[in-house]
Amino acid sequence: MTDKRDAVIDGSESTPSHDRADDLGVRGTIESRRRRFLQSGGALLALASAAGSKELMAEEATRDLPPVDPLVAIPESMKAPGAPIGTKPYGTPSSFENHVVRNVAANQLQYWSSTSRSPLAELDGIITPSGLFYERHHAGVPTIDPARHRLLVHGLVSKPLVFSVDDLRRFPSVSRIHFLECSGNPVYKRPFGRTASDLVGLVSCAEWTGVTLKTVLDEAGVSPQGRWVIAEGADGAGMTRSIPIEKCLEDALLVYSQNGERLRPEQGYPLRLFLPGFEGNMSVKWLRRLKVTDAPAYSREETAKYTDLLPSGKARQFTFYMEAKSIITSPSGGQRIASPGFVEIRGIAWSGHGKIARVEVSVDGGENWSDAALQEPVLTRALTRFRFAWHWHGQPAIIQSRAIDETGYVQPTFAELVDARGDNSYYHNNAVQPWRIDQDGEVSNANV
Amino acid sequence: MTDKRDAVIDGSESTPSHDRADDLGVRGTIESRRRRFLQSGGALLALASAAGSKELMAEEATRDLPPVDPLVAIPESMKAPGAPIGTKPYGTPSSFENHVVRNVAANQLQYWSSTSRSPLAELDGIITPSGLFYERHHAGVPTIDPARHRLLVHGLVSKPLVFSVDDLRRFPSVSRIHFLECSGNPVYKRPFGRTASDLVGLVSCAEWTGVTLKTVLDEAGVSPQGRWVIAEGADGAGMTRSIPIEKCLEDALLVYSQNGERLRPEQGYPLRLFLPGFEGNMSVKWLRRLKVTDAPAYSREETAKYTDLLPSGKARQFTFYMEAKSIITSPSGGQRIASPGFVEIRGIAWSGHGKIARVEVSVDGGENWSDAALQEPVLTRALTRFRFAWHWHGQPAIIQSRAIDETGYVQPTFAELVDARGDNSYYHNNAVQPWRIDQDGEVSNANV
Repeated sequence: MTDKRDAVIDGSESTPSHDRADDLGVRGTIESRRRRFLQSGGALLALASAAGSKELMAEEATRDLPPVDPLVAIPESMKAPGAPIGTKPYGTPSSFENHVVRNVAANQLQYWSSTSRSPLAELDGIITPSGLFYERHHAGVPTIDPARHRLLVHGLVSKPLVFSVDDLRRFPSVSRIHFLECSGNPVYKRPFGRTASDLVGLVSCAEWTGVTLKTVLDEAGVSPQGRWVIAEGADGAGMTRSIPIEKCLEDALLVYSQNGERLRPEQGYPLRLFLPGFEGNMSVKWLRRLKVTDAPAYSREETAKYTDLLPSGKARQFTFYMEAKSIITSPSGGQRIASPGFVEIRGIAWSGHGKIARVEVSVDGGENWSDAALQEPVLTRALTRFRFAWHWHGQPAIIQSRAIDETGYVQPTFAELVDARGDNSYYHNNAVQPWRIDQDGEVSNANV
Repeated sequence: MTDKRDAVIDGSESTPSHDRADDLGVRGTIESRRRRFLQSGGALLALASAAGSKELMAEEATRDLPPVDPLVAIPESMKAPGAPIGTKPYGTPSSFENHVVRNVAANQLQYWSSTSRSPLAELDGIITPSGLFYERHHAGVPTIDPARHRLLVHGLVSKPLVFSVDDLRRFPSVSRIHFLECSGNPVYKRPFGRTASDLVGLVSCAEWTGVTLKTVLDEAGVSPQGRWVIAEGADGAGMTRSIPIEKCLEDALLVYSQNGERLRPEQGYPLRLFLPGFEGNMSVKWLRRLKVTDAPAYSREETAKYTDLLPSGKARQFTFYMEAKSIITSPSGGQRIASPGFVEIRGIAWSGHGKIARVEVSVDGGENWSDAALQEPVLTRALTRFRFAWHWHGQPAIIQSRAIDETGYVQPTFAELVDARGDNSYYHNNAVQPWRIDQDGEVSNANV
C-alpha cells in the first residue's frame, strides 16, 4: 500500500495477508502458448484462447523477475480518492460509454414520423435501460404536467369517470416485464441496414407498473354493447387507436412507471396504455381518453397507416399481434470477431403471442439448426435472451437465428413472408436475419 | 380537431368516428356522491372512492351542458408539436420528477465512508433504475478506462491469468436479477429515520450480466488447497474481502453490465464481483484481482469493520448472508393517505438465502397478520414486490410487514434480534419496520 492510500483511509486498515499485484513478476502475453491452445481443439483450451486470456508463469517462479507488467501494477485509481458522492444524485453512465446512445437517423420528419432505435448490439440481458429505450413519435414529445393531466373514461359505460394520475396510482397495481415493438421493425423488405440496431432497433423491454385496464373499466361499468375501446393520446398527433374489448380485459395496463421510476417523457409521461404483445403504437402514449364503443374508430393509424395491401387487393387491417421474432446481436453487423476460437452467439427473441419456447441457431447458412440456451426466467411477451456456444474456425460463415413460440409458430424467412403476403406490405416483417462473417471476422448483413 | 393540429400532421388523417372530450359537457367532482361511496362499504364502491375518481353524469345527459370541465378540455400539448427527437440520445426522466433522486446525507466522510440511498417510496416494481441505485463507497468513485483495466487471477491456481474486460465479455455470459444490500441497512439500532429510504435505502435490485466466477476459476485451475478467494478493488480503498470458495463456485459473477448497459461508475465500472445474497461490500467493485488462498485475508472490512461484538465478548465475523427482510414502502414515513377508503399497502421483500415464500402484513400493531400477494415472477435473491388490499377507516393504525423466505426463516422484531445478539451490534439489522398512521393519514416511523 502507498502512504497516500493509507492517508485517505482511516489509518486503521490492517495489512492484508496477501501481496499486492505489483509485488509479483507478471509476464505479458505468451503468444506461442496461445497459438498452441488454438491448435489443440480441446474445449477448455479453446475457451482460454477464446477469452484472449494472457497466461502467466506461476507466481512463485516469477516473483523475482523484473519488470512488472504495467497492466497489473497498482493503477492510478488506487493512489488517490475518487469522485465524491452526491455530485450525481441521478446517476449517468460512464463517460467511456458516451457512444452507447439511441440510434437516430438523420433528416427525420420530426413532427410527423420520427424514431430512435435501441443500440441492440451494445445491450445485455433483457431489460432495456430507459435512457436507451426506442422511440417512435408522430408529433414529437409533449411536455405534460402530471398534476394537470386527466384520463377520461366514457362512451358505452354506466358511469363516465375522470382520473388524475394520483387517482390511478391508488388503485391495485401490477408490475410486469414486457417487450414493446413498432410494427415497422424492420419495414417490410429484405432489410439492408448495417447493424442489428439499424434493422430491428425498434424493440425494447422494460418492467412496466400500472393498474389493469380491466380494473378501471369495471369501475366505469362497460355496457353489453361495448366491443371496442378507442384510446387517444394527448400529443400533437392525437394518436388514436381502437382496441378490442377482449384485450382490454385480458392484460392491458394503464402504465405510470417503467423500470422502477415514473415513465420517461418519450414513453408517455405521465400515463400510457400498454398492450402486451400488440404493435407498439396501439399502446397509446400520453393517454388522455378511453371511449368505449361498439365499433372501431377507423382512425388514420388503422386505415391509411398500419395496414398492408395484399395481392388480392384487400388490406390486412387490425394486425394487432407482433409475431415471433429473433435476432443475433453478437456477433452482428458492424462488429468483428477478434480471433478464431470460442464465440458465444447471443441474441434476443420475443413473441406477442406468449413465451418463447425455443430458439434455433444455424452457423452454416441455414442448412442445419441447433437449439440455443434460453436465459431464465422466460417471461410471456418479454424479450428472451438466447446463447449458443460456437467454435469459429476462421472461415467465412453465415449465422442466423429463428424463434419458435409457445403456440408452435416458427419465425419465417423473408421469402416465406412474401409467398404468403406478396411484396406490397410495409409492416410486420418478422423474417429471419442472417449475418455474414468473412475470413477476417468482419460481420455484415447477409441480405445483399 | 384544431386546424393547427391538422397542419402538423400530414393532412391525410381521417376524422375519428368519436368525439373529442371538449365536445362533452363534463362535470367535476361530485363530493356528495363520493362521501356516499365511503359510507357504503361495498367493495366496488369503496374502490371507486379510494381511487378518488370523479364521477360524471352520463355523456348523453350532459352533452349540451356548459361549461366544459377545463381538466378534460383539449390540453395545450395537443395544439403544437412536442420536442423533436435526437435532442436526448441518452434519455433522462421528466423534469417534473427532479425530486426523485438518491438520498444523500449531509456532511459525509467522502473518502472514508459515503452512501446514497435509493428513494424506495418513489419506486415501483422490482428493478431499480441504475440512476437511482444505492451507493456505498470507501474512497469515492474512481474513473477507470476500461481499455486499460485488467483482472489478475492468481494464488493457488494452476495458471495465473490476466483478463481484459473484452476477454471476459467473450466468455459464456449469464444475466440474473438480484438485489444488492449494504450490511448496515439500517444500522443495528431501533431505527429512527423518517422515510423508508432513510431507513433501508441501501438496498436496490438490477439485472446483472457477466461471466460466472466458476468459469474463470476453472480456467485458472484452482488447486485442492484453495479454500478462499481474496477479491481486491481498484479504488483508493483497495477494498479487500475474502470469499469462501464454495460461494465462488456456486453463483458468483464477474459483472460488466447492469440493467442492460455497462455498469455505472458508482457500481464498479468496468468490472465488479457480484455475490448474490451476500452483504454488499463483498461484491467488490472496480475488481482488479482475485487471489486463491487457503485462508481468509482478515482485511479491515472483515475485522475492524463488518463484524459484530456479541454479549459473550466474541465477535460475529464473516456474516455473509443478508437475512430475510421486508418493508412497506407505501404508505410509508413522510407520506400521507389522502382520504379514508381503499389503500393498497405495497412494499418489497428479499432474502439472501433464496426466494421469498410469504410476506405477512399487520394493520393492527402486530396482533394479527395476513398474507400479502407476491408479484410474479418471484426470483431467488431478488427484490419481491408485495401488495395487500386494505380499507383504511380514518383511524390511527400501525402497519408493518414481515418476510418469510423459502428456508422458513421469519423476519424478526428488533427485540428478538437484541435477545439473540445483545445490543452492541452494528450490522445485519433485518428487523420488522412499523409505520404509524395518524387520524389525518400522516405516516411516520412508529419506532419512537
